[in-house]
Amino acid sequence: MPATDTVHISLPDNRHYEIRIGSGLLGEPASWQDLPKASAAVIVSNETVAPLYAQALRQRLLAVYARVDLVVLPDGEQHKGWDSLNRICDHLLGEALDRKTVLFALGGGVIGDMTGFAAAIYMRGVPFVQVPTTLLAQVDSSVGGKTAINHPLGKNMLGAFYQPERVIADLDTLDTLPERELRAGLAEVIKYGPIADAGFLCWIEDNLDALLARDKVALAYAVRRSCEIKADVVGQDEREQGLRAILNFGHTFGHAIEAGLGYGEWLHGEAVAGGMVLAADLSRRMGLMPDSFVDRLRALIARAGLPVQPPRLGAERYLQLMRVDKKAEAGAIRFVLIESLGKAGLHSVPDALIVETLTAHGAA
Amino acid sequence: MPATDTVHISLPDNRHYEIRIGSGLLGEPASWQDLPKASAAVIVSNETVAPLYAQALRQRLLAVYARVDLVVLPDGEQHKGWDSLNRICDHLLGEALDRKTVLFALGGGVIGDMTGFAAAIYMRGVPFVQVPTTLLAQVDSSVGGKTAINHPLGKNMLGAFYQPERVIADLDTLDTLPERELRAGLAEVIKYGPIADAGFLCWIEDNLDALLARDKVALAYAVRRSCEIKADVVGQDEREQGLRAILNFGHTFGHAIEAGLGYGEWLHGEAVAGGMVLAADLSRRMGLMPDSFVDRLRALIARAGLPVQPPRLGAERYLQLMRVDKKAEAGAIRFVLIESLGKAGLHSVPDALIVETLTAHGAA
Repeated sequence: MPATDTVHISLPDNRHYEIRIGSGLLGEPASWQDLPKASAAVIVSNETVAPLYAQALRQRLLAVYARVDLVVLPDGEQHKGWDSLNRICDHLLGEALDRKTVLFALGGGVIGDMTGFAAAIYMRGVPFVQVPTTLLAQVDSSVGGKTAINHPLGKNMLGAFYQPERVIADLDTLDTLPERELRAGLAEVIKYGPIADAGFLCWIEDNLDALLARDKVALAYAVRRSCEIKADVVGQDEREQGLRAILNFGHTFGHAIEAGLGYGEWLHGEAVAGGMVLAADLSRRMGLMPDSFVDRLRALIARAGLPVQPPRLGAERYLQLMRVDKKAEAGAIRFVLIESLGKAGLHSVPDALIVETLTAHGAA
Repeated sequence: MPATDTVHISLPDNRHYEIRIGSGLLGEPASWQDLPKASAAVIVSNETVAPLYAQALRQRLLAVYARVDLVVLPDGEQHKGWDSLNRICDHLLGEALDRKTVLFALGGGVIGDMTGFAAAIYMRGVPFVQVPTTLLAQVDSSVGGKTAINHPLGKNMLGAFYQPERVIADLDTLDTLPERELRAGLAEVIKYGPIADAGFLCWIEDNLDALLARDKVALAYAVRRSCEIKADVVGQDEREQGLRAILNFGHTFGHAIEAGLGYGEWLHGEAVAGGMVLAADLSRRMGLMPDSFVDRLRALIARAGLPVQPPRLGAERYLQLMRVDKKAEAGAIRFVLIESLGKAGLHSVPDALIVETLTAHGAA
């Protein structure tokens, strides 16, 4: 059993918080100590995760807070909208909970993003803690303070930069993760290699079987290294003025896939996987990377059981969906492209080249 | 005609912005220069204000932005909710406007609060400019970065601290302000006396007739002095950790009046006026202020044509509505009370004393 790892996130204005990674953290009293004082805590979870872990977490939190409520939302990306956000706010207001109340996001990326956004806006801000229970949330979405809900016209379009007090990534919660979601989480792990760490890409290639077999030592390292890379990027650029955008490798195409198919049809990680195949191809067409890189990345994504074939939405629909991407400027779509192994940058790409890539992959 | 005044707001992290106060600022090219570069601007206004000033503002902004859209919302506090917020977001997304887009809030406090909140959450934050056209917005709500919408269970319960790029307070726009709204704005002007500046309270008493007659020199001074006091307080405590709460003198009762009667029944300033009468009385009952202060403040409020008689909602209803106040903690209602003329502080008050005050004013 690996020991607990701690990754520190340092932000401007002397703000900072810890990501704790390890087995058994949910039941560990230390995980819940030294958080902001409050008379009440609210666990926000979903119908899938709540039955598994909410009561255990509630028991632990009752040692710290006089009152611990539970709000259970429907599960799935298609529920990451106004309605669910409102259910959290309605509960907080209906129970007259004050602005010291601490929210705990117990679940995957959807729960984390929505709970964080609710925390950001309730009475103009209450503290919150991320308790990610999916690989995707542990390696990516729970870290870095991006919160949001979806809009029918675009993914994560309404939200806030709002940092948690702490992230508690209990690796044991991955034991109950469905196979498909484990694989989806691996997409975000794989992402960190090409954009920031060529050595990590090799490590993933070498340890993919162990990761798929849920080997705890391998998972612990994958989560820690992913969080380290993310912490480093976010520490330099919290509000995505520049560098932080590289974390969105594969996401411009990916968000279009999610919105185009209807949220929840493909998991976020699956859409990012398909998006990385397209973005790698675009990097090659822009003359930045060789064919061999595209083949290598596609092979790894395929080995992880993730889609390498993006859906056929039609080129026009892809372009339309990507023009509302948050990185777009004055109608020009911008992509995170790989410039060399372990280094990425933001590039405007001519529509014609985007269409070429989509066509070559049967997506146009 | 008074010259343009500028009040500076200085915030942590080297952030700062200007409040410009004067006549004819809307048509003054300098008002709209040196704002963040963008390919598009969006004016958000309401059905009352848009016909008066939107086209003039749009013409000026077209000198700076290639594209200037206009979103017109229904007028009134009862429309300060999810639906109106969504209409702003739907427009931004529907037109695929990017995250450099600058929003301009043209109207009173409702428009300013909602546009600011939309700017805070659209793509996790776009720049915005306040163009307040009511006295209330010019002296209070456009300054300091509090943005919000109402919830059926409480006023301004969902929002963000999000600062504008600039505030342009054109005194000429007050010419078209209905009498009732002018008086409502005076409630917030009067507020600044007891909480921060005894001399300003005397000045208001001496110049109330000129203010009611819309004398530009008197209005210019009232707006400037109000903004100076607010800038000073907000500069010390942007996120209302402590001091900033004093700006909410009269607002705990006031918000209960607004929510209890139904938003829009009383104007915000009217509810604050009634709330100040109650809060002054509470200051006296807590032994902080003499009877003479209560009489003096009530007389001034009455002279301004504002209500000194709070509505009879019943004591229980008042208490219930005030327990969800943002200043409440662990169920205890806290009030901004006057400690000496020009000095205010936050005080927990026993329910019995609150009921006494409500009963004495026929509100229980």
